[in-house]
Amino acid sequence: MATDSLKKTANKMKYLVTGGAGFIGSHIVDYILAHGDKVVVYDNFSTGKKSFIQHHKNDTNFTLVEGDVLDTKKLSKSMKGVDFVFHMAAHADVRSGFNDHSIDHTQNLEGTQSVLEAMFANGVKKIAFASTSSIYGDAEIHPTPENSPMNPTSLYGATKAACEHYIHAYATYYDWDVYIFRFVSFIGERYTHGIIVDILKKLKDNPKEIDLLSDGTPRKSSIYVLDGVSAMFIGIKKAKDKINVINIGHDDILSVNEIVDIILEAAQSTVKKKYQGGNRGWKGDNNFVHLSNEKLKTFGWKPNLSFKDGIRKTVEWILLHPTS
Amino acid sequence: MATDSLKKTANKMKYLVTGGAGFIGSHIVDYILAHGDKVVVYDNFSTGKKSFIQHHKNDTNFTLVEGDVLDTKKLSKSMKGVDFVFHMAAHADVRSGFNDHSIDHTQNLEGTQSVLEAMFANGVKKIAFASTSSIYGDAEIHPTPENSPMNPTSLYGATKAACEHYIHAYATYYDWDVYIFRFVSFIGERYTHGIIVDILKKLKDNPKEIDLLSDGTPRKSSIYVLDGVSAMFIGIKKAKDKINVINIGHDDILSVNEIVDIILEAAQSTVKKKYQGGNRGWKGDNNFVHLSNEKLKTFGWKPNLSFKDGIRKTVEWILLHPTS
Repeated sequence: MATDSLKKTANKMKYLVTGGAGFIGSHIVDYILAHGDKVVVYDNFSTGKKSFIQHHKNDTNFTLVEGDVLDTKKLSKSMKGVDFVFHMAAHADVRSGFNDHSIDHTQNLEGTQSVLEAMFANGVKKIAFASTSSIYGDAEIHPTPENSPMNPTSLYGATKAACEHYIHAYATYYDWDVYIFRFVSFIGERYTHGIIVDILKKLKDNPKEIDLLSDGTPRKSSIYVLDGVSAMFIGIKKAKDKINVINIGHDDILSVNEIVDIILEAAQSTVKKKYQGGNRGWKGDNNFVHLSNEKLKTFGWKPNLSFKDGIRKTVEWILLHPTS
Repeated sequence: MATDSLKKTANKMKYLVTGGAGFIGSHIVDYILAHGDKVVVYDNFSTGKKSFIQHHKNDTNFTLVEGDVLDTKKLSKSMKGVDFVFHMAAHADVRSGFNDHSIDHTQNLEGTQSVLEAMFANGVKKIAFASTSSIYGDAEIHPTPENSPMNPTSLYGATKAACEHYIHAYATYYDWDVYIFRFVSFIGERYTHGIIVDILKKLKDNPKEIDLLSDGTPRKSSIYVLDGVSAMFIGIKKAKDKINVINIGHDDILSVNEIVDIILEAAQSTVKKKYQGGNRGWKGDNNFVHLSNEKLKTFGWKPNLSFKDGIRKTVEWILLHPTS
């Protein structure tokens, strides 16, 4: 009995999740703990929330460190004995780089440098990284495969692409295993920013009429967060290269106009929509996002939820959690 | 007569060249002044040399500012009235990133951010940038076309790729014209670092036997600096997109062993070669570099000098300028 128990302890993986109290990060933490492994959540609670992880506080496999990824010393100390890092902490607001040229650089690229240095200092050799469809910019091929050129049109996309390159260099130098996941938008429980929150907020401010950024024509895809998290773990299990780049998207494509209508229907609203913009939501927006999931499909993955049902579930969750 | 003269002044382009006293930058300065345009050389003389630009000191179209690209305030002040920026200043030693994880980031990426901010502050909307074949890493396709994936295997390559992305984002936000040139190694007059300098230094230290980094098998290409500079100006004249990415390479490919033999022959040496390494010169080196020049060829460009003659000319110049 003692031997079995020791063996089990010895076989446990120890993960560290930066941004582990955030929207996607906290679902990764749920997954890790549900599978009996150990996890250190490292989060500065700038956008992460204690309520997203509090259900684990009595789990002996769970450790919480309140810290900023830019604090390399603290991060490095927190990484002792860790086998695998999920680096999810980021500045995830794609739009703001136009008016603030430094925030993506600091939060995304310098944050990632700090994670890489902490891994290097601790001899940690496995990393999963949250990259983005934005690294492709206005892709020429749809659905866009992983070997397409990177042409980011925003500083958000540029810094995420830069992170990928820095990770690639460290991995080459020090023989690491790397899993870079290029996400479309994630939606679902604990969703905290993006078009669904924006629309619901506008509805609250003015239930009669809402202004919308584009002309409604940009086409997007999103993935339900539990489908996205299972894609990450299947990718890590099945991908066999040292450096793996894997798209996580959805074959359901909806126009912004359709997305808005689904949100309004789920919120039981008959508000008047006023589209104010052109065929892009903002300067640097990409008006068609459709990633190829062929690689993930060869691993046996497919999403359980349609894009439409994902939106409905997200609206439902936000309306039930008005303070989150 | 006065009208003509005024007209001529009004038609003059005003360039700023960061690293304008460096190896490649100083040849760009020569080209600009030979064509009657105005140029501000901005250089901190960390690797640039006054001797490379002193022949222009009495030219009224020439201005020298001794400054660091990281000094955004000084750079911005120097950029007043400038139409076009050549951003050539960089940390160009590909090898050192393995032991120093910050130097490429600071000198290349933060340096480029500073240039972009100075351009933004001054409303300058045209930039040519010195990128590198290293952004491709171990390319799968040879000769490697511009739309190949970026997979840099060194922090040098990673930071240069990051610079490209940041430039792309600013160009999208502010409607700039961009010319990104991905160079193989440049050789020729004023060459200051790289394999030719290394070998000649080793020869001086020990004329009987020299140690070499690889096993001699990596295959490389280089371009003679005047051919490379003419490629840049032809590219700027002929490329018609807002954001243009253009390889500058050579179809002559030589193994390191062949390169070393040409250097030794040009230096009239019969030293014994001792290859000490494997099929890469160092961790993160790419063992086959052959860029496609198809895009440049459609513009009517071709190199005047063979790779072999470029090496000979470089050895000759170094031996005649032992203190450079």
